[in-house]
Amino acid sequence: MLRNKVAELFGITYPIIQAPMAGGITTPELVSAVSNNGGLGMIGAGYMNPEKLRTCIHEIRQKTENKFGVNVFVPNDFHVTEETIEVSKRSLKSIYNTLSIDENMLLEIPTPKCILQKYEKQLEVIIEEHVPICSFTFGVPSKETITKLKENDIILVGTATTVKEAILIEKLGMDVVVAQGYEAGGHRGSFLNDSENGAIGTMSLVPQVADAVEIPVVAAGGIMDSRGLRAAMFLGAKAVQMGTAFLTCKESGANELHKKAILNATEDETTLTRCFSGKTARGLKNQFIQEIKEKETVLPDYPVQNYLTTPIRKVANEQQNKEYMSLWSGQSPRLAKGQTVGELINRMMEGVF
Amino acid sequence: MLRNKVAELFGITYPIIQAPMAGGITTPELVSAVSNNGGLGMIGAGYMNPEKLRTCIHEIRQKTENKFGVNVFVPNDFHVTEETIEVSKRSLKSIYNTLSIDENMLLEIPTPKCILQKYEKQLEVIIEEHVPICSFTFGVPSKETITKLKENDIILVGTATTVKEAILIEKLGMDVVVAQGYEAGGHRGSFLNDSENGAIGTMSLVPQVADAVEIPVVAAGGIMDSRGLRAAMFLGAKAVQMGTAFLTCKESGANELHKKAILNATEDETTLTRCFSGKTARGLKNQFIQEIKEKETVLPDYPVQNYLTTPIRKVANEQQNKEYMSLWSGQSPRLAKGQTVGELINRMMEGVF
Repeated sequence: MLRNKVAELFGITYPIIQAPMAGGITTPELVSAVSNNGGLGMIGAGYMNPEKLRTCIHEIRQKTENKFGVNVFVPNDFHVTEETIEVSKRSLKSIYNTLSIDENMLLEIPTPKCILQKYEKQLEVIIEEHVPICSFTFGVPSKETITKLKENDIILVGTATTVKEAILIEKLGMDVVVAQGYEAGGHRGSFLNDSENGAIGTMSLVPQVADAVEIPVVAAGGIMDSRGLRAAMFLGAKAVQMGTAFLTCKESGANELHKKAILNATEDETTLTRCFSGKTARGLKNQFIQEIKEKETVLPDYPVQNYLTTPIRKVANEQQNKEYMSLWSGQSPRLAKGQTVGELINRMMEGVF
Repeated sequence: MLRNKVAELFGITYPIIQAPMAGGITTPELVSAVSNNGGLGMIGAGYMNPEKLRTCIHEIRQKTENKFGVNVFVPNDFHVTEETIEVSKRSLKSIYNTLSIDENMLLEIPTPKCILQKYEKQLEVIIEEHVPICSFTFGVPSKETITKLKENDIILVGTATTVKEAILIEKLGMDVVVAQGYEAGGHRGSFLNDSENGAIGTMSLVPQVADAVEIPVVAAGGIMDSRGLRAAMFLGAKAVQMGTAFLTCKESGANELHKKAILNATEDETTLTRCFSGKTARGLKNQFIQEIKEKETVLPDYPVQNYLTTPIRKVANEQQNKEYMSLWSGQSPRLAKGQTVGELINRMMEGVF
C-alpha cells in the first residue's frame, strides 16, 4: 500500500473512518471492530453524558489496542421560551397520542449554558482519557479549546459541507477536514451555510474543497465500497468516512429494524428532514416525517425539538415501531450489505493499492 | 487508451459527452469543437423548431466530419386553462413591469398536441439527416418511436435520475443511460420520480445504476475535469457527460454574462428552481429566482411557465441583465475555466489511461 497521509496521521492501516453516528449506534463492539480491522472507529458522543462517554472509552480499550476517536457536537446558540415549546408540543400532540406518551415522559429542555457545560465536560473526558482523535460537528471549537486539545496531542477533525466551512477549519489550525456531501445520512454538519446552500453533492464538494485547503480532506456521503473509496481518492480525498455502510454491519448497535429498513430500501427513499431534532438530517421516509412535514417551518431549533421527540423515538424503539424511529441513511442503501466490519473493510481494500 | 464501450459505440475517441444544453448554448461552433476534439458534441434541440434543427445539423456537418448527437425533450401531458395562465401572469406581473414587458410580447401557449407534433417533426429531421445518436430527456420515447429510430440505425440514449428510471430505459431497448446526479446544472431529467425523490448525488447514483442495468452508464453531475472522469469510471460509468464545463468554454453560445457568472461563482450559489420553466432545474441564484420563490407552488407546469417567462429571458438577454436570465450551472463552478474545448478535453485525458 502506498503511503497515506491520513492513515499515517491517525496511526491506522487503511484510510477508512467509521462515521461517528450518535444515538446508540457506535457501540464499543462497532468502534473496536473498525479499529481492529485497520480503520478508525469513532464514538458518536453527541448525545452522551460525560460519564457514559468515559465508560464507553474504557470498554473500547478492553476490546482494542488500536487508535479510535470521539466526535462531539459543538453547541450552537439557541433561544427557547415556554411559547416555543408549547407550539412544538402542539405540533407533536397527535404523535404523542398515537404512541401513548404523556407530559411526564417529556424531558426538561436544558438551557444553552447546561449544554455548553456538558460539551466542556465531554472534552475534559477526552483529554483525561488520552483519546488520540477528536472530531467536531455543527460548528468549530473555540480557539482556546483548540489550543488546549493540541497541547494534549489530540488530532482535531472538523466537518464541512462547503468550501467556506473547510477554509475556516483549516484557518483555525485543525488537522483534517471531513467534506460531507449531500448524499450523507444523518445530520448535516452545515454551520456557516444553512442546510439548503450547504447541500453540495460529494462529486462536486470533494475536489472544490481539496483545491481550497492544504490539510487532508476526508470524503463523506454516498461511499459504501471500494468503488466509492477509489472515486473519492481520485477526487482529491485522502480517506473516506462511511456511516450507512458501518451502521448496517453486524457489529453496529443500530436497531435491527433500522438495519433491515436500510437493507430493503432504494436510493430514492431518503429525505432531508428537521422533524426529529430541529437540525436537517437525512433518513428513510416514514410516518413521523410525513405527519410532521407540513409543520416543519414552525418546529423549534436544535436541540429543543430533539428533546421533545426523545420520548417518541424511545417508545418507538421499545414498541419496535419503525414508523416513529429516526431511520438515518445515506443515498446508497442498495449498496449496504448485512456483513461484518472485517468483511466490509477487507472487500474495500482488495486490490485498491 | 483502453477499449471503451461507449466511445466505440458512439464512434468517438474519448468517453466525453458534451451535455445537450438547450437555449442557444450548443451552437454549431461548440458541438463541432467537441466532436473535432474527440468527444461527442450534442445539440440541445429541446426548444428548437424542426427547421432550425436541420440548419444547425447542416452547419455542424460543415465544421466536422465526426459523430455528434441531438437531444430532444419527450413531451409530457399537461393541462392548461385560461385560469392557470392568469394565475401565473399575476405572479410574474411585477417582473414584467420591471423589464417593461407588455401582454403583446407574451407567446401563445401551444396545446399538448402542437408540442407532440413539434417533437415528432424533430425526430423526422433526425432520421432524414442521419444523425447517428439521439438522446432523450424528461421521459422515454414510445415503443413505436424506438423501433423506428432503431430501424434507421440511430443509437438511443435515455436520461435517468434514479435506478427505476434507468431500468425502464434499458427495458425499452435503449442503448445507453445517462445517470444524472443531483449536482448537475440545468433541468432535472426525472420522469418516474418527482424532482424531490429524484435528487440523488452522483456518488450514490452511478454505482447503484451500474449495478442495476447492463447497458453502459454515462455519469453526469459535478464532473468538470480528469478527477471527475476517473472518479466516475471507478464508480461504474463508461463515460461522462458534462454541461457546465463545456458551457464555460470559449466556443459555447452561452451569454458572456452567464459564463462570467459561473466563472466567478462558488459551489454554494446554485439552487433548484421551477421558476423559469415549470420544471425543476439548477442554476445560480439571482433576483428572478428570489422574487418568485414564495410563489413557486402556484406556478403552472412545464411548458406553460416556460412560455410565460420566455419574454423575460429574452429581454434580460437584450438588456444584458443577468438578474433575470436563467443562469444554469452545476454545483462545481469553482472548477470551471474559460478555456477552449480542446484545452478542456486534452487536460482531461492527460495521463488518464
